[in-house]
Amino acid sequence: MRPLTPTETSTLGILTAACLAVLVNTWRSDGEPLFASLAISGIAFAFTYATILWSGEVFMRKGFKGRDLSKKNGGEIPETMGLVCALVYLLVLVSFLPFAFKSHIVASTLDAGYDKDRILEGGGMETGRFLHRFPLEKLASYGFAYATLASTTILGILDDAFDMRWRHKFFIPAFAALPMLALYFVDFGVTHVSVPVPLRQYLGVGELIDLGGFYYVYMGAISIFCPNCINIMAGINGIEVGQSIVIACLILLNDALYLFPAAHRPPHPAEESHLFSVYLLLPFLGVSVALALHNWFPAKVFVGDTYCYFAGMVFAVVGILGHFSKTLLLLFIPQIFNFLYSAPQLFKLVPCPRHRLPRFNARTGLLEPSVATFEEAQPLRPLVGEGLKLLDTVHIVRVKTDERGRVTETSNLTILNLWLVWRGPLREDRLAVEILLLQTGVGLLGLWARHSLALLLFTADNRF
Amino acid sequence: MRPLTPTETSTLGILTAACLAVLVNTWRSDGEPLFASLAISGIAFAFTYATILWSGEVFMRKGFKGRDLSKKNGGEIPETMGLVCALVYLLVLVSFLPFAFKSHIVASTLDAGYDKDRILEGGGMETGRFLHRFPLEKLASYGFAYATLASTTILGILDDAFDMRWRHKFFIPAFAALPMLALYFVDFGVTHVSVPVPLRQYLGVGELIDLGGFYYVYMGAISIFCPNCINIMAGINGIEVGQSIVIACLILLNDALYLFPAAHRPPHPAEESHLFSVYLLLPFLGVSVALALHNWFPAKVFVGDTYCYFAGMVFAVVGILGHFSKTLLLLFIPQIFNFLYSAPQLFKLVPCPRHRLPRFNARTGLLEPSVATFEEAQPLRPLVGEGLKLLDTVHIVRVKTDERGRVTETSNLTILNLWLVWRGPLREDRLAVEILLLQTGVGLLGLWARHSLALLLFTADNRF
Repeated sequence: MRPLTPTETSTLGILTAACLAVLVNTWRSDGEPLFASLAISGIAFAFTYATILWSGEVFMRKGFKGRDLSKKNGGEIPETMGLVCALVYLLVLVSFLPFAFKSHIVASTLDAGYDKDRILEGGGMETGRFLHRFPLEKLASYGFAYATLASTTILGILDDAFDMRWRHKFFIPAFAALPMLALYFVDFGVTHVSVPVPLRQYLGVGELIDLGGFYYVYMGAISIFCPNCINIMAGINGIEVGQSIVIACLILLNDALYLFPAAHRPPHPAEESHLFSVYLLLPFLGVSVALALHNWFPAKVFVGDTYCYFAGMVFAVVGILGHFSKTLLLLFIPQIFNFLYSAPQLFKLVPCPRHRLPRFNARTGLLEPSVATFEEAQPLRPLVGEGLKLLDTVHIVRVKTDERGRVTETSNLTILNLWLVWRGPLREDRLAVEILLLQTGVGLLGLWARHSLALLLFTADNRF
Repeated sequence: MRPLTPTETSTLGILTAACLAVLVNTWRSDGEPLFASLAISGIAFAFTYATILWSGEVFMRKGFKGRDLSKKNGGEIPETMGLVCALVYLLVLVSFLPFAFKSHIVASTLDAGYDKDRILEGGGMETGRFLHRFPLEKLASYGFAYATLASTTILGILDDAFDMRWRHKFFIPAFAALPMLALYFVDFGVTHVSVPVPLRQYLGVGELIDLGGFYYVYMGAISIFCPNCINIMAGINGIEVGQSIVIACLILLNDALYLFPAAHRPPHPAEESHLFSVYLLLPFLGVSVALALHNWFPAKVFVGDTYCYFAGMVFAVVGILGHFSKTLLLLFIPQIFNFLYSAPQLFKLVPCPRHRLPRFNARTGLLEPSVATFEEAQPLRPLVGEGLKLLDTVHIVRVKTDERGRVTETSNLTILNLWLVWRGPLREDRLAVEILLLQTGVGLLGLWARHSLALLLFTADNRF
């Protein structure tokens, strides 16, 4: 890894100084926490950008390194650098708390008047400020969000350090999500969902249906799905962190629809939830963009499983604690497609090679679909082979058959390979850009559908 | 590592089954959370005990291993096994939350009556249960305690994986403690301390003095001190986890003084804080005793820095969020002594060898004080040498001098070596037992002083 260039040093220095000035000013003038969040995200960006450069050597010395298989003469570069993002993120999330609650601290302090006698007489000494005015439910959300993300980081590190098996690590995020689910259980406890109008008469239910325990299974599934689906849509420079940035921006856009005063007056009842989401996502964008600059083609660092889990869990946390998990899923459509498309290989219906990332053609410098080949000794089950051939005819996969019509080879079942099947060989960064544009387009379409078509299915928009 | 013996399997199985039965029963009958906490701690013990045996191999394969220097032919054994304790602890802490808040969940649900229309009309859908009855400040404490301990675990893993330098890792716990300090800042905000009566007229202050920002520095110092002082009172089998168990038991004794109804009626105002402490410490005892059984002489596993940080931070969390950090320090007197006694070597006044653990005499099988020797090329500063000779005359250290009276060698400045200077060579387990008895005795004395002598200095007992 190289040291910071003078240009980088001065740019990051000026950015940090400007952000610190905004922070101090926001604190003094009791300004909007949003400005503090933006400033803290700027600092998080600068700090992450520099720390990745500084710590790359240490990571490599300790064995956190890998070889880029899609480069002509790729040396080893640091792996697991998403850990830096996670640590900086946790640090700035805590630093933001005093800003988020400044107005309440001042209000409740004035309320109590810091009247020592009164505090002493009332037995209030033990609790300090009088608590009934303080938005403790918000504070608890931050605490448990932090707890969940810190747990995710622990399990990510363990995965990166111990190379866990796929079937073990698939369930890891469920453990990490426990603090969030516990908070939901003891605090919110809402397990009702709105039933789409057309379904009500068939199901014989009213506007709301109480899913009870199943709602926790659903939330657990969300927190397993988000981290894992980012982890499996991987394999080319910049794609893990790129898709995370796109999804974060789309959620922020959705938040803005609720928060932008012109769109909804009077203030939308879900405003607090969406502010929570904004405050969690802005610093996430800060650390992710810094990582993306190092991880973009040609990558100088790898992000590691830690980043994928961490990013996915940030989305799960804002979706679940912000009560918009179904909207969230609309932004994960490419990931959902990729997961379903991968399923035959993940569940071993179709043999799954160790790596499924697109094949690098050293002669052209372009990526081509990688393939899984089937040995004579371990042929495909005939039914599966017929299925693959059927998919081939509608161009959802590319197979090769031998003279007897048996499938001997198929393109690996990932969205990246499928895109290459459709578009032909592409350079690595071109492929990443196109997939990210696809993600953006599908996400925007999803949000449009969510906000304009939802009224056809539900009696009111934005219930969740 | 060996598999579980049939006796172990059946004992752990019966224990787990019994604890599960207690848990189910407590849940059904809305029993005291204390029983749930005891049952969960039992499960934590069984789970930790078994997982350490199961995962030892994996840890060793990944390079987390070390050689026991105080054994005749010590092979390599797994290192960092305290990580298992930390992970199990975090898991059971979350699992305990529904039990801790069961009565409140029921109460607030009944209160709201789960009246769907009322919830909908009142806009309460977003928040579910009505919040004003729910003890959210307690819930936030658990969330931030978890957040702090998870952060400590992350930094402990990084320390164990990256072998950080002493001067860097000294400050690690301060970062991990940030969530707790942030909670304290935005939620409690009590920065007043009682002034001892005799000091009031000299300082010209009243009963309370507001330390403001200095109180946060003080709390930060506590959270740096507790983890580090357990980490430096180390080096023989069972001492890290043994001292943690003793301290935890002493804190529980102190909690019992507040909670036991016979001692204080009506219920003490600090009861909630001490229940919080009990609920955090019982599962800690569970995982620690399990680790101790594997780490006791002759050790089958090492605990690692992760455990020391984790244990120290558990104490810091209960002391700070439970508002009895000064009492806590009374239980750390041997650690405080060890830290002050070590200071000349920690701050390089006296040369500090890589390891300061007692020296194993392979001939006798006993431990003797280890020594730091001073080369002719790098002699001691004369003043430091004179100081050491002075300490030697009062038997606080053992030095050797050359014919010109210059100090050539000193026993290493740790409480373990000092004890060996006083008591002569001891077997490793004997030394551990004696130091733990010392810890127990001094702690009991401290608690007695705290509760019987405090009235001489303060106008009321148990203010904090």
